[in-house]
Amino acid sequence: MGSTCEVNAAMSVWRTLPLFVLASSLCLCLSRAEDSAMENIVTEKKAEESHRQDSADLLIFILLLTLTILTIWLFKHRRFRFLHETGLAMIYGLLVGVVLRYAIHVPSNMNNVTLSCNVNASPATLLMNVSGKFYEYTLKGEIGANEVNDIQDNEMLRKVTFDPEVFFNILLPPIIFHAGYSLKRRHFFRNLGSILVYAFVGTVVSCFIIGLLMYGCVTLMKQIGQLGGDFFFTDCLFFGAIVSATDPVTVLAIFNELHVDSDLYALLFGESVLNDAVAVVLSSSIVAYQPEGNNSHTFEAMAMLKSFGIFLGVFSGSFALGMATGVVTALVTKFTKLRDLPLLETALFFLMSWSTFLLAEACGFTGVVAVLFCGMTQAHYTFNNLSPESQDRTKQLFELLNFLAENFIFSYMGLTLFTFQNHVFNPIFIVGAFLAVFLGRAANIYPLSFLLNLGRKNKITPNFQHMMMFAGLRGAMTFALSIRDTATYARQMMFSTTLLVVFFTVWICGGGTTQMLSCQNIRVGVDADQENFIGPDGVERRSTKHESAWPFRIWYNFDHNYLKPILTHSGPPLTATLPACCGPLARCLTSQQAYENEEQLKDDDSDLILNDGDITLTYGDITVSTDATGAHTSGTAVGGVAVNSDEALDRELAFGDHELVIRGTRLVLPMDDSEPPLPLDSHRHRHKYETMS
Amino acid sequence: MGSTCEVNAAMSVWRTLPLFVLASSLCLCLSRAEDSAMENIVTEKKAEESHRQDSADLLIFILLLTLTILTIWLFKHRRFRFLHETGLAMIYGLLVGVVLRYAIHVPSNMNNVTLSCNVNASPATLLMNVSGKFYEYTLKGEIGANEVNDIQDNEMLRKVTFDPEVFFNILLPPIIFHAGYSLKRRHFFRNLGSILVYAFVGTVVSCFIIGLLMYGCVTLMKQIGQLGGDFFFTDCLFFGAIVSATDPVTVLAIFNELHVDSDLYALLFGESVLNDAVAVVLSSSIVAYQPEGNNSHTFEAMAMLKSFGIFLGVFSGSFALGMATGVVTALVTKFTKLRDLPLLETALFFLMSWSTFLLAEACGFTGVVAVLFCGMTQAHYTFNNLSPESQDRTKQLFELLNFLAENFIFSYMGLTLFTFQNHVFNPIFIVGAFLAVFLGRAANIYPLSFLLNLGRKNKITPNFQHMMMFAGLRGAMTFALSIRDTATYARQMMFSTTLLVVFFTVWICGGGTTQMLSCQNIRVGVDADQENFIGPDGVERRSTKHESAWPFRIWYNFDHNYLKPILTHSGPPLTATLPACCGPLARCLTSQQAYENEEQLKDDDSDLILNDGDITLTYGDITVSTDATGAHTSGTAVGGVAVNSDEALDRELAFGDHELVIRGTRLVLPMDDSEPPLPLDSHRHRHKYETMS
Repeated sequence: MGSTCEVNAAMSVWRTLPLFVLASSLCLCLSRAEDSAMENIVTEKKAEESHRQDSADLLIFILLLTLTILTIWLFKHRRFRFLHETGLAMIYGLLVGVVLRYAIHVPSNMNNVTLSCNVNASPATLLMNVSGKFYEYTLKGEIGANEVNDIQDNEMLRKVTFDPEVFFNILLPPIIFHAGYSLKRRHFFRNLGSILVYAFVGTVVSCFIIGLLMYGCVTLMKQIGQLGGDFFFTDCLFFGAIVSATDPVTVLAIFNELHVDSDLYALLFGESVLNDAVAVVLSSSIVAYQPEGNNSHTFEAMAMLKSFGIFLGVFSGSFALGMATGVVTALVTKFTKLRDLPLLETALFFLMSWSTFLLAEACGFTGVVAVLFCGMTQAHYTFNNLSPESQDRTKQLFELLNFLAENFIFSYMGLTLFTFQNHVFNPIFIVGAFLAVFLGRAANIYPLSFLLNLGRKNKITPNFQHMMMFAGLRGAMTFALSIRDTATYARQMMFSTTLLVVFFTVWICGGGTTQMLSCQNIRVGVDADQENFIGPDGVERRSTKHESAWPFRIWYNFDHNYLKPILTHSGPPLTATLPACCGPLARCLTSQQAYENEEQLKDDDSDLILNDGDITLTYGDITVSTDATGAHTSGTAVGGVAVNSDEALDRELAFGDHELVIRGTRLVLPMDDSEPPLPLDSHRHRHKYETMS
Repeated sequence: MGSTCEVNAAMSVWRTLPLFVLASSLCLCLSRAEDSAMENIVTEKKAEESHRQDSADLLIFILLLTLTILTIWLFKHRRFRFLHETGLAMIYGLLVGVVLRYAIHVPSNMNNVTLSCNVNASPATLLMNVSGKFYEYTLKGEIGANEVNDIQDNEMLRKVTFDPEVFFNILLPPIIFHAGYSLKRRHFFRNLGSILVYAFVGTVVSCFIIGLLMYGCVTLMKQIGQLGGDFFFTDCLFFGAIVSATDPVTVLAIFNELHVDSDLYALLFGESVLNDAVAVVLSSSIVAYQPEGNNSHTFEAMAMLKSFGIFLGVFSGSFALGMATGVVTALVTKFTKLRDLPLLETALFFLMSWSTFLLAEACGFTGVVAVLFCGMTQAHYTFNNLSPESQDRTKQLFELLNFLAENFIFSYMGLTLFTFQNHVFNPIFIVGAFLAVFLGRAANIYPLSFLLNLGRKNKITPNFQHMMMFAGLRGAMTFALSIRDTATYARQMMFSTTLLVVFFTVWICGGGTTQMLSCQNIRVGVDADQENFIGPDGVERRSTKHESAWPFRIWYNFDHNYLKPILTHSGPPLTATLPACCGPLARCLTSQQAYENEEQLKDDDSDLILNDGDITLTYGDITVSTDATGAHTSGTAVGGVAVNSDEALDRELAFGDHELVIRGTRLVLPMDDSEPPLPLDSHRHRHKYETMS
């Protein structure tokens, strides 16, 4: 073998390099002369073969989704509510997984034979010199050792195994963005305080409760020798963090369908959306916990603080980034006439929203979290600047992406239960986990609800609390977090257990929602939109403003008087709200529409109406000297419709809901015509149907 | 070095394997003991680093597209027509390319150091044993030798270089599908014969003309020693094939904007759409030309025939697959009530269309071609079954995807002119190529037009021919084909030359379209929809049926009497068209709508109207004994509107156009209100604007 010289060369170069630059140096020790042309053909053949294989694998999933869609349709058609599309997707995934695992066997000569010896590095890129030609190899990921042993059989299974990062970088972002973009803003903001408490305090609490319980469980297992590998306290905490991300998509779909009390809806939805974000950052900062010293699993205050700092930094950074890009989009859509070209507008909207994710990832923040807040900002500001067509387009686009991504993830979950190679199912751990998840949820909901009720005007009634307890489903986020790293024994055991938790909660809790609703006798058929507009007599109308906490009120006034006018065409003219000194600035920032609002009073665009209305609120809360235009505007506005600040606020926040309720109802149960008295959006749909069909 | 034993093991296993199963056996010859935990951290660090890097790179493109969109808006706003968005995207791409190439320098310690020695295989997958952990590496592709030498500088550039297959498997399909889905069917079918001739005969002719010319050019270069590597006749033919795919997106946009004669539009669009498909298959079958014997570049009849067989097989196979999935989708959407749930419907439509591509690739056919014909089928049949909302959604979705993909490809083109590592610019070859492209196009258009005019009623006038000649732009398809394989010297030279051809044609020809139109005094402002509906007096109205060739007439009758009724809700009831014997079958296949058509006569859904109308045509062409229902239906139908078969045909085929014209106009110049008398679609949009803004 004439490779010694090269080896020496290797050594010498190696020493000259800083440690963290690992040389991706490889030399294949088989030296046989072959015809280069022949190789090329063979290589091409192989590449083509693998491409075909990939297409076929992807095809499996596409057909799976198609099948799911058809079955969902059947279910909705037949008004079945016991099984949600996601649960269905999982079942189909399971079936395909069984087939792939036990039915299909790839002829072993399709496989690569592997001879390997110890190396000290796994670089991200390998360069390989094949008789003069250089081929680049990229690190795909780690493979379990046991997988390599019987690689012959597992080739097929490894084929249908996606890179775990796919979920985080491709499938999750649209889901999370859609959640933020379709938030029921009025009820969300009304319950903002409670939601934040549930999301932040609650998630942390349940994370630590679960972590401690699991640690107890693990130590027990160690005692009776059930543990086959390391399982540190940090691992337990990590497990607590990932299973604390609730995802009650099933429950919410049914809530939408049955028009369950919208405060309950808002509490659940808001909590689930935000605690996903919290769980992501929490888990990453737990991973980042690395004390100095040789024993890297002791408690250490500094490292603890560092992790906490990371948590704060990453979360706030992602939050800021998401807001920032949202604001930029709002400004662009406001100050360009892009609304004349809906296609360009939609494309821009899509690209900007996507860039949020990339930007956050590039900066080392969490893209998913950034995307969430970007979605909220887009819904709150940019949405008002979009042309009606783009409003539909963007909503429908992200609705579709969300639908596809969600069902893909759930069907992959089902599949991976059988195709994943390194499952570690440990009865004790599993039982412990289920118990811990239950207790963690309980420790989150009941105590916090009690504390919150001390401050809330409309209490969170016990049956609401039970419902929230029951609706603690685990879903896409938990899965994505747990599959992300399955290198160690502990992580593998977590992954297997998490899968079971998801299956159980989605099928049992998801399926039992209607029963739970009835046995908790929670009122259904509440009209989310009418609820607060019984009329001027004010029978049972509840004011957002008076109920919501003071921080929200401050924020609302600021948002309404300054942010909305700056970022959108709506809101009172800045000339009216800003102090006289900034007159010129205000004039150039205020768009023409803001002045022309009164012309549009007869128009049925509620967003614009209520802005006129709110001008009274403006004057009510802050008394600034207004220039003629502003005063004039507001004057006629108030003349136009006699609305007081609270109605205005309600209506404004309600604007988002109209759209969503319709969407929701369409999505869940479009055949029933007992929709809420139709807002403009659905009027349009109606009209469509009349004209077209 | 304790690697000898492993080497022997390697050798032994190696011998036991069939040749084409190349063992991906590697052993790194650096054996140094290191702390495993440390490695993990380092590996994670590196993975994270590269992930960040990737995000940043992708971000560059996103921002590029955003910038392009904003500039396009400005141009459209200012009515600039000399530069199309694609041309703009290229310019921006160029700028960024320059910056990446000359401004940015990555610190060299970020790079991987490569030590390599000769190997005899480049397997698709590598498994690497890093002290117990197995890492999987996948073949990313080949890298030019010169690139490896100065890898320090090129790291950054290689980063922004996409896997060439991305274009073919991800970016091109939506573009091609959209082309098929938004085909102006009436004018397309009216000129079907001519389009097919241009697409098939024309492309082959130009391919061979260009091939021959380039071969002459290459031999000349060999004479004067300008050729730095092999360049065989097959390479020349390959070049001819890839530059024969025209893509006059710029021209068509302007045609749409100015309402140029719709026959000319149809000819250009139809040709460009189909010759893409032809060029793809042609090039692949040229590559497949491999004569036996040691000298693999001689002419050999058998291999030639084999290639021809491959061409026919792949093309017809892809065609059949595309049609098949389209038909399946049509049947599914017809026989399920999926239209009640637009979201599911859209999702299904999207998935089925995508599965076409995957299916074709998995079967070894050409996915892009399959997708094209799938799109046409979807537009012709499935579209009629979709709910109005889904019709909008699908159109808008694919419009958006097309827009994004197209602009991405063109900006990448600009970028790659500077970032691609192995450019081979050869003046002689480039000049020769431009000449050959010009002559090839000429040899395609003029002779064929002459021949076609012998058969056509409405001749293709000389100025139309000049316009078609001029509109022979090269675009996305040519680029994707040429970048797909840049391993050999010949391919690299082709790639570089192709880039220049694309730039030139898009900028010069694209930019000069309006001038060309005026100097050829081609009438603009033709109303695509009114043109044939001057009225019953029939002044200058041209009938599709009489003009089009007999094969089309036969096909039309078959399609209208059998396919449409079977696959859609429209068309005459099968009970009327099928012979009495198949009565029961006909009844179960005919949907209720087909009978209820007369109720909807007052309705403005043109598709349904004209079907009633066409029933007369049905009876005109074939006289079958009809059962009561059918006769009744048709009777009232004819009573309802007195249309004759030709108008019916025109209107039916026109149905697709309405939508497209509107889309087109919106896309290109939405501010001008001189739209064609608005069909229902835009009425709806109008209404939206009134209600919303």
